[in-house]
Amino acid sequence: MNYKMTGYIIGKMLGVEGVLLLIPMAVGLLYKEPTAVWFLAGTALLILCYLIWGRKAPENTTIYAKEGLIIVATAWIFWSAFGALPFFLSGAIPNYIDAFFETVSGFTTTGSTILTEIEHLPKGILFWRSLTHWIGGMGVLVFVMVLTSLDEKNSMHLMRAEVPGPEADKLVPKARSTARLLYSMYFVLTAAEIIFLLFGGMDLFDSVTHAFSTAGTGGFSGYNASVAHFDSVYIDSVITVFMILFGINFNLYFFIVLKNMMGVLKNEELRYYLGIIAAAAVIIAINIRPMYETLGKAFRYAVFQVASVITTTGFVTADFNQWPEVSKCVLLMLMVIGACAGSTGGGIKVSRFLILLKSIKREMKLMLHPKAVTIVKVNGKRIREETMRGVYVYFIAYVLILIGSVFLVSFDNFDFETTFTAVLTTLNNVGPGLGLVGAVENFAKFSGFSKIVMCIDMLVGRLEIFPFLMLFLPTLWSKKF
Amino acid sequence: MNYKMTGYIIGKMLGVEGVLLLIPMAVGLLYKEPTAVWFLAGTALLILCYLIWGRKAPENTTIYAKEGLIIVATAWIFWSAFGALPFFLSGAIPNYIDAFFETVSGFTTTGSTILTEIEHLPKGILFWRSLTHWIGGMGVLVFVMVLTSLDEKNSMHLMRAEVPGPEADKLVPKARSTARLLYSMYFVLTAAEIIFLLFGGMDLFDSVTHAFSTAGTGGFSGYNASVAHFDSVYIDSVITVFMILFGINFNLYFFIVLKNMMGVLKNEELRYYLGIIAAAAVIIAINIRPMYETLGKAFRYAVFQVASVITTTGFVTADFNQWPEVSKCVLLMLMVIGACAGSTGGGIKVSRFLILLKSIKREMKLMLHPKAVTIVKVNGKRIREETMRGVYVYFIAYVLILIGSVFLVSFDNFDFETTFTAVLTTLNNVGPGLGLVGAVENFAKFSGFSKIVMCIDMLVGRLEIFPFLMLFLPTLWSKKF
Repeated sequence: MNYKMTGYIIGKMLGVEGVLLLIPMAVGLLYKEPTAVWFLAGTALLILCYLIWGRKAPENTTIYAKEGLIIVATAWIFWSAFGALPFFLSGAIPNYIDAFFETVSGFTTTGSTILTEIEHLPKGILFWRSLTHWIGGMGVLVFVMVLTSLDEKNSMHLMRAEVPGPEADKLVPKARSTARLLYSMYFVLTAAEIIFLLFGGMDLFDSVTHAFSTAGTGGFSGYNASVAHFDSVYIDSVITVFMILFGINFNLYFFIVLKNMMGVLKNEELRYYLGIIAAAAVIIAINIRPMYETLGKAFRYAVFQVASVITTTGFVTADFNQWPEVSKCVLLMLMVIGACAGSTGGGIKVSRFLILLKSIKREMKLMLHPKAVTIVKVNGKRIREETMRGVYVYFIAYVLILIGSVFLVSFDNFDFETTFTAVLTTLNNVGPGLGLVGAVENFAKFSGFSKIVMCIDMLVGRLEIFPFLMLFLPTLWSKKF
Repeated sequence: MNYKMTGYIIGKMLGVEGVLLLIPMAVGLLYKEPTAVWFLAGTALLILCYLIWGRKAPENTTIYAKEGLIIVATAWIFWSAFGALPFFLSGAIPNYIDAFFETVSGFTTTGSTILTEIEHLPKGILFWRSLTHWIGGMGVLVFVMVLTSLDEKNSMHLMRAEVPGPEADKLVPKARSTARLLYSMYFVLTAAEIIFLLFGGMDLFDSVTHAFSTAGTGGFSGYNASVAHFDSVYIDSVITVFMILFGINFNLYFFIVLKNMMGVLKNEELRYYLGIIAAAAVIIAINIRPMYETLGKAFRYAVFQVASVITTTGFVTADFNQWPEVSKCVLLMLMVIGACAGSTGGGIKVSRFLILLKSIKREMKLMLHPKAVTIVKVNGKRIREETMRGVYVYFIAYVLILIGSVFLVSFDNFDFETTFTAVLTTLNNVGPGLGLVGAVENFAKFSGFSKIVMCIDMLVGRLEIFPFLMLFLPTLWSKKF
């Protein structure tokens, strides 16, 4: 275990966060908010951390997979712990655990909130809330990699631990170039959404913050009513389309840039992803039809909510908690499925489900013909046995963590639907659940203990379990291991 | 696909069921019930089926794993379909789907009932209800194997498909001898429970039917209030102990007969099973303490319910639906865990969980040291990679079937807790759930469609998924495959 190099990278990362806090401060100053000063306090503290740990690289800069996993997990915890300071110090969120929850929810692009009244908050604070989504969506380490130089051999260990999906691909040979490419595409798409929203009559602040929340598939909105606040078919449509776009594997956009359209069309995950969205939207639209005046209106709310939930964004245009059980059940299934691998979305990911379903079919064939040679292909590529085993164990760990968390949160003695969906929505980084954490509700009602459990769930979900689970492996911390 | 041999074995099995129906008929006659005649009608029909298909063995008697799986799945469906006739014809259950549900629930040792009023039913009918538990517990094919001769090579294919757990062991080299040994031990234990219950002042009829339900880990009782009807510390204790005993791998009883006590004590699954029962009982007893006068009383109800649920029996002495969420959540977890492999209990089985948990730990180690040589051991024996993969895929299929069934049952538009736990309790062959299928409720309220879905869940749970899932594999039915 290379503690020095680990500390060095974390220190450097905290410095970057310190600089980052200057952006919401600038926004706050623009609106002449006195609370903007608290961002500066955060910056000062973070720069101090940088000066202590992150200024000088140690002699031995070699790190392995192990350090990569630890750095990723601790970086996310520290970024959240320090990122919570402006919320806490400014008095916007008077309880530190709540502020931590809100920040974890931001960086992990969950979008679950403990705020009961959002609209009266200072603009700087609201901006920081949405900015955490934007940075967290593509990954805090990937972000740092774009801005600072880490040598090549280290970068890949970090990227592999942070980028979602069963197999991390590099678009181009160098990890740093890959990170820059990803961020360029991310930036262009976000800018496009801002422009589209401005055309719909949204003001600049709302356009930027909502585009940030869409891009990161986060879901924080500056309004208590979320996107329903605007009640505009145009804005609903723009956000629906962009949510779906941000749930797609970014590698496919790179294919488009390279004019490799066949690579896009042949992508099995994409076809299933769009197919599931279409099927779910139709089922829900029919199911909720009697609740709305026209089928068109039912479809508008259905498709928005489907896109919002499968991409794990969590924006709301209708109180789906009032919908019939079938629609609610479909939404819960979409939460678990999640978006495409390599996107900013959460959940288990469509490609993992494809692997799981194909494995079951293969297992049945093997039961009949134990010596048959069988391979599983996704996107036309053979999946290696180790990757398959990784996906199996991933899914198993996911379910066990879900069950364990539901048990811990059940100490708050809320009804089963509330407890179960609160854990499900945080573990999958969605945002709202059902019952007392439904579309128009919030997470303020839980105990501090449950909030901590859900913070862990959000981090576990965003980091795809293992980097975080590693922290609890005692042997990991020994120098010798 | 050897259709002739498949039909022959099924035909033979139906003949055995025909003979079996004479037992509840005799009970009915003893109580001078006119409804006893309907058992004879069932017998006549079944014997007719036997004469058509099961009398003469075909020339080619060779069957493979494939036929074994199909025979097991169809045998269970036919046994349930014909076993439902006495309920239906006698008018005890006027709706055939309900009668089918009740019979599937009986044979699969689930114990979920659609009956709203149990006590007024004829004794013959009540006896048949409990007898289905007793036969189903050890397996209907194993039962037929004890009574009739199937050649050795065929028997093992059938046993492997029917006996629960990740790996089917033969106690002695011959499958039929193994089946007889299992049934002897099963018979002795059941007889012991009957005697203990008689000592507690229960009449013979109640003792036999409740012992049958305990032995099969079923849960049908002749009383609306289940075991709470007797309200006796002695009877609660006897049933608690026997439920726990019937949840243990029967191989261990064979070890005891062989005086191989080390084999028993070294059994890891047994230690975890007893450990989980103890831990769960303590947590629940503390949690429900304020609801009862003394800690002793709280513990009595807690340990009974824990034993009832982890062994997937489903007897009830307290309305646990009124307990706090923590206790309910513990019970739901126990439903999923289930009893030991090779017992009459359902659920995923403790040994499978041990394999899953150890796999997660191994996966984490492999992430750090990809070339490390790692093996997983349970009960001191190395688990083969194929068995591990089988357990992974089993768990994955289990979760996906759970999710899919919840979706289908959600069309009935009951609340989430009811829908989710109704599926969970049927899939794990437990009996009661929470909410509207809670401890003092029943399954009459569901639509015919949902009842069929839950019948499939019960069969899928009892046959450990794959034999049943195979029926939906189109290639299986081709002659060539």
